[in-house]
Amino acid sequence: MNKGRMEAFSDGVFAVIITIMVLEMKVPHGLDLQALRSVTPVFLSYVLSFVYVGIYWNNHHHLLHAAQRVTGSILWANLHLLFWLSLVPFATAWMGENHFAAMPVAVYGVVLLLAGFAYFILTRRLIAHHGTDSLLATSIGRDRKGAISLGLYLVAIPLSFWKPLAACGIYTLVAIMWLLPDPRIEKMVRE
Amino acid sequence: MNKGRMEAFSDGVFAVIITIMVLEMKVPHGLDLQALRSVTPVFLSYVLSFVYVGIYWNNHHHLLHAAQRVTGSILWANLHLLFWLSLVPFATAWMGENHFAAMPVAVYGVVLLLAGFAYFILTRRLIAHHGTDSLLATSIGRDRKGAISLGLYLVAIPLSFWKPLAACGIYTLVAIMWLLPDPRIEKMVRE
Amino acid sequence: MNKGRMEAFSDGVFAVIITIMVLEMKVPHGLDLQALRSVTPVFLSYVLSFVYVGIYWNNHHHLLHAAQRVTGSILWANLHLLFWLSLVPFATAWMGENHFAAMPVAVYGVVLLLAGFAYFILTRRLIAHHGTDSLLATSIGRDRKGAISLGLYLVAIPLSFWKPLAACGIYTLVAIMWLLPDPRIEKMVRE
Amino acid sequence: MNKGRMEAFSDGVFAVIITIMVLEMKVPHGLDLQALRSVTPVFLSYVLSFVYVGIYWNNHHHLLHAAQRVTGSILWANLHLLFWLSLVPFATAWMGENHFAAMPVAVYGVVLLLAGFAYFILTRRLIAHHGTDSLLATSIGRDRKGAISLGLYLVAIPLSFWKPLAACGIYTLVAIMWLLPDPRIEKMVRE
Repeated sequence: MNKGRMEAFSDGVFAVIITIMVLEMKVPHGLDLQALRSVTPVFLSYVLSFVYVGIYWNNHHHLLHAAQRVTGSILWANLHLLFWLSLVPFATAWMGENHFAAMPVAVYGVVLLLAGFAYFILTRRLIAHHGTDSLLATSIGRDRKGAISLGLYLVAIPLSFWKPLAACGIYTLVAIMWLLPDPRIEKMVRE
Repeated sequence: MNKGRMEAFSDGVFAVIITIMVLEMKVPHGLDLQALRSVTPVFLSYVLSFVYVGIYWNNHHHLLHAAQRVTGSILWANLHLLFWLSLVPFATAWMGENHFAAMPVAVYGVVLLLAGFAYFILTRRLIAHHGTDSLLATSIGRDRKGAISLGLYLVAIPLSFWKPLAACGIYTLVAIMWLLPDPRIEKMVRE
Repeated sequence: MNKGRMEAFSDGVFAVIITIMVLEMKVPHGLDLQALRSVTPVFLSYVLSFVYVGIYWNNHHHLLHAAQRVTGSILWANLHLLFWLSLVPFATAWMGENHFAAMPVAVYGVVLLLAGFAYFILTRRLIAHHGTDSLLATSIGRDRKGAISLGLYLVAIPLSFWKPLAACGIYTLVAIMWLLPDPRIEKMVRE
Repeated sequence: MNKGRMEAFSDGVFAVIITIMVLEMKVPHGLDLQALRSVTPVFLSYVLSFVYVGIYWNNHHHLLHAAQRVTGSILWANLHLLFWLSLVPFATAWMGENHFAAMPVAVYGVVLLLAGFAYFILTRRLIAHHGTDSLLATSIGRDRKGAISLGLYLVAIPLSFWKPLAACGIYTLVAIMWLLPDPRIEKMVRE
């Protein structure tokens, strides 16, 4: 089965997710700096989520670039990932509108955790189909970054109820870790 | 006529439908577990609809993979299917916000029934164009699953007014039936 | 310049337009047939607009199928068409929510008229670029249907202020005229 | 790395941005010319933003047409551009709803400035990757138009607090400058 349409559909969903989030940034009522400042928490949570969805799109791009073919179960593992990512706008808006309060920050972490786990399942399904000695399996490798991310989310979620801003700091840290160029992957792709 | 653009347009519509549904999941007002629990019915109806749209995308993908060419009447049969699927977000929101009350559950079933029927018409138009001995016709076969689904919707719709949760159970059952891998189709595609 | 990306972008815009219209169909407050009936005018105007956007997508598909290359001015003629089509959801919602009152029905007609005129400009730009003896010019021909549509809109718009439902009847008539298969075009495409 | 999927994803984001803006054009409450007139400022700001997003899509199309390959840092420079463009609907709605008041007009200019700067970064990343003697570098040239635009935004933003309509005039001027066909680029593309 051809991977082209799975990529096209995923691109569509990524594009809609990343763009509709901004619809949650409601136009402020005032016309002064105060009005603009009132949008700041929603804006900051939007920036964080935009970067996260961008990272997922980027990784998804690399992952499927290395893939040769897809099966029915890979299509569903992909839809499973898109499902959790589709909840990011909801979690982002709840977190931003409530100025990073405990419960929304924890829910945001749960959504990130489940999206990260869904991405892990997708890589396993792809490796199972392509073989553990395939280019795809080598390029994924042991996926240390993915494992560290899941671990950090597991720390951040309970931390949210005690120090929500520290939990947000952890989410930001994970995003920065992914943003830094990964010489290993870039090298793989070049070869 | 080339099928590429019909696939691209359909992918776009599928992507928008599956993603805008989550916009109906309004951010709760509170900040505790109670607030989160208030979103549960909308969330559950979202999960069900996400799976349904995913199934339709998956089947659409398989169907057009086997198709060679499309005609004007196939384009319209496809738009007809997309029309009923575009009503899924509306039915989902109405059902979820009213905690699976009788009338919205029945309307949800009617939308599923008409989408299922539109899919049936699309397969017939494709078979008429490709011939009954084509690979496409063989891969669709007698479409027992499709017929069973339509029958179950016809049972669930009147049942909604008496036991709406039982009707929802039937919708879930149909979705599970489609989620289970179909060795017959997978085999066809492999050959 | 390649036409592929202009098609992809247009498909995306068509897909979003046709799908976000349904967001204007607000979930009714009641739970009985009365509540469902209150959505009927919005639903009917949605059906009409869905068919119109479907017709435009279909014609756009045929038109660009025959085109070989695009220029900067063709890209802008295309964006001009997409602009007027992007106003269809607004006009649809205003018309539906006000049960086909005079002013919204007239505005709906103006949007259809300007979209039709923008489509005409797009065909002229394409013919100017491909030559009047090109396959594209032949397949567009004298575009009688397009001219009749514009004429009927010009009749319907003033009529809206006197008999708005009759104007809606004319819009429906134009849509049906386009839905009926056009043997001439189908024949061209086959050759 | 292939540029195809970056184009497809960008097209999706452009298509969603350009179309969801119209969702901010709320259906007016009245049914007379007065009601229609109340939408005029929102409509005018929508027209301006539609043209701007159209210009960006057009330039993006030309830019990537000349590009051969993309890298991780180019993908992020592209996401950075899409981020600022995704704020256009927010700035447009705030400006239109407040009839071109000082603060929203200034914010609109800041968004345009940052999008213009992000576009500049994207061109530099592409040139760094393709070489200063590549076709891409030649077709971008010294990008005088881009530099003039950034300069005009820098004039318009402080001007907004004194004469907001004059600032809007500058934004319109920049858009017209880009709309006028650029013989140099068209010539490049032809060769």
